[in-house]
Amino acid sequence: MAGQLFLGADTGGTGIKFVVCRADGKIVDQGEVPTDPDSIPISMERLSCAVAQYHSKLQAVGMGCAGIIDPVNGTVGRSPNLPGWQNSPLRDLISQAFLGKPVFLANDVNGALFGEFRQGAGRGCQNLVMIALGTGVGGGIVLGGQLLTGSRHGAGEIGHNILDPNGPLCSCGNHGCLEAYAGSRGLLKHARQVADELPPGNLFKIELAEIGDSLTTEHLSQLAEKGIAEALEVFAWAGIRLGQAVGNLINTLDPDRIIIGGGVAKAGDFILGPCRRVYPDLVLSEEAKNTPVVVAELGNQAASVGAAWLARESLMTGDPKK
Amino acid sequence: MAGQLFLGADTGGTGIKFVVCRADGKIVDQGEVPTDPDSIPISMERLSCAVAQYHSKLQAVGMGCAGIIDPVNGTVGRSPNLPGWQNSPLRDLISQAFLGKPVFLANDVNGALFGEFRQGAGRGCQNLVMIALGTGVGGGIVLGGQLLTGSRHGAGEIGHNILDPNGPLCSCGNHGCLEAYAGSRGLLKHARQVADELPPGNLFKIELAEIGDSLTTEHLSQLAEKGIAEALEVFAWAGIRLGQAVGNLINTLDPDRIIIGGGVAKAGDFILGPCRRVYPDLVLSEEAKNTPVVVAELGNQAASVGAAWLARESLMTGDPKK
Repeated sequence: MAGQLFLGADTGGTGIKFVVCRADGKIVDQGEVPTDPDSIPISMERLSCAVAQYHSKLQAVGMGCAGIIDPVNGTVGRSPNLPGWQNSPLRDLISQAFLGKPVFLANDVNGALFGEFRQGAGRGCQNLVMIALGTGVGGGIVLGGQLLTGSRHGAGEIGHNILDPNGPLCSCGNHGCLEAYAGSRGLLKHARQVADELPPGNLFKIELAEIGDSLTTEHLSQLAEKGIAEALEVFAWAGIRLGQAVGNLINTLDPDRIIIGGGVAKAGDFILGPCRRVYPDLVLSEEAKNTPVVVAELGNQAASVGAAWLARESLMTGDPKK
Repeated sequence: MAGQLFLGADTGGTGIKFVVCRADGKIVDQGEVPTDPDSIPISMERLSCAVAQYHSKLQAVGMGCAGIIDPVNGTVGRSPNLPGWQNSPLRDLISQAFLGKPVFLANDVNGALFGEFRQGAGRGCQNLVMIALGTGVGGGIVLGGQLLTGSRHGAGEIGHNILDPNGPLCSCGNHGCLEAYAGSRGLLKHARQVADELPPGNLFKIELAEIGDSLTTEHLSQLAEKGIAEALEVFAWAGIRLGQAVGNLINTLDPDRIIIGGGVAKAGDFILGPCRRVYPDLVLSEEAKNTPVVVAELGNQAASVGAAWLARESLMTGDPKK
């Protein structure tokens, strides 16, 4: 077993992050190559070249990728950020670039969850839920130490669970999804609406007008740090609905813990404080009321680390579903 | 293996339903004995006597029971309908009445789900969700052919998932839980509120006044069958929220199908029609949009049948968690 290595990669719209890991998870190398959004073969050739020195010891490749992934058939379906990758035999194309080595796929949030499960905020747990608060909101579930993919690879789409049928319009066309509150797109839209309705001269309104179209959740965090009430209220508006989603997930799954990741989670207690205040009262089981809600630890590297672990474990069990 | 038998029982507030099954699931006997709400030993003695002729061939006993069940430690915690059973070593007490035979516990909804999974509306599936619409609303989940109990035996409490934070008050103290819409208590409360607000002379108002405190969901179904608009609207009010809950569960778990059981499910298309109209549009994954929502098939016998199957399968795997 000595010297065996595993490649984990995470393909985003602009770059492919990768780690080369030993069987015990120790990272021996890491880096990033640019994604070619129109060509999987060119993208994989870049990745293969970047890790050429490890090829002889590579046992398997794990790939996390945004979009609808079918890990059994090895294909990528809808993939909004990678139009040229859609409906492609991704697994076979990766395998070609790596001289026929075994390849295992997962969607990017499942990859990140598996990374947190093995080396991050979910170490030692068997049942986990991850909520990834990015532009949109993704999710992933580990039960009994296994990624839950569902009967049709549709599990974990908790960003589109509806929390209030009279809530704000979501990008999916429905109203009141978690994503419409706690994804950065929904959160920033709400912040602008709050500002619009404030009287001239209000500090929050002035700050948002100065920032203009470049507004990010980091800006909102900075305003919250200054103690501007409306910024705190905007985060609480999202955090309370996040708490409702957390309560529903605990009632449904009773996991060991729930991990909050993604860029919006960097707002920390501004959003997680309100979340943590509300969810215990929403959980029926006394024993599960205080299920910990923790912040992801691995940051940008979670999905590539998780993909390497998935590759290693799938190779050992021969299970393409992992 | 020939001649092996398994006892499955389902303890309610007034009676213990039981089935005696062969290893292939065929029921060779069935019946009911009265529950002693104050004494587990007396109740179990009655059950043991009722099946005395099968004792020599009984391999194991499965018991479904309302309340918070810890299947690993074999205890029953909170159990509103069986005050004298609370905080008891239920498994040991059953085993004593059955001369030390192996005993396996589950809560009643998980028992019913397992019955439907093996012999009812979930035959041939691996991933199932059951929503039991009784006075309250219970739930159960099978994933990968295994009952999901969660990290603290709190999984499957989907009746208390909140669908609208501004919704009606639930028995749990929160607002807008599924139970507050689709449990008979919530549904009937809403029907009375609708009637209260109607003008004198309205037919629905008159019918409800005549029925008075004995109002049941069967009465409402009869009024709906007569085409009384307000009765149909009351069921639609519940069915639309049930559809939202179904959509959220498909987004989260992507099961093979969702089974609706319990007394309120007897209202059939009056409640399931609105449910089925709304949920496909709430599911993100194209592949999962048309996940079937089906009615339970085993009726009152589901939990005892399921308990017998759980006993058999738990005995084979030695897993007390099943």
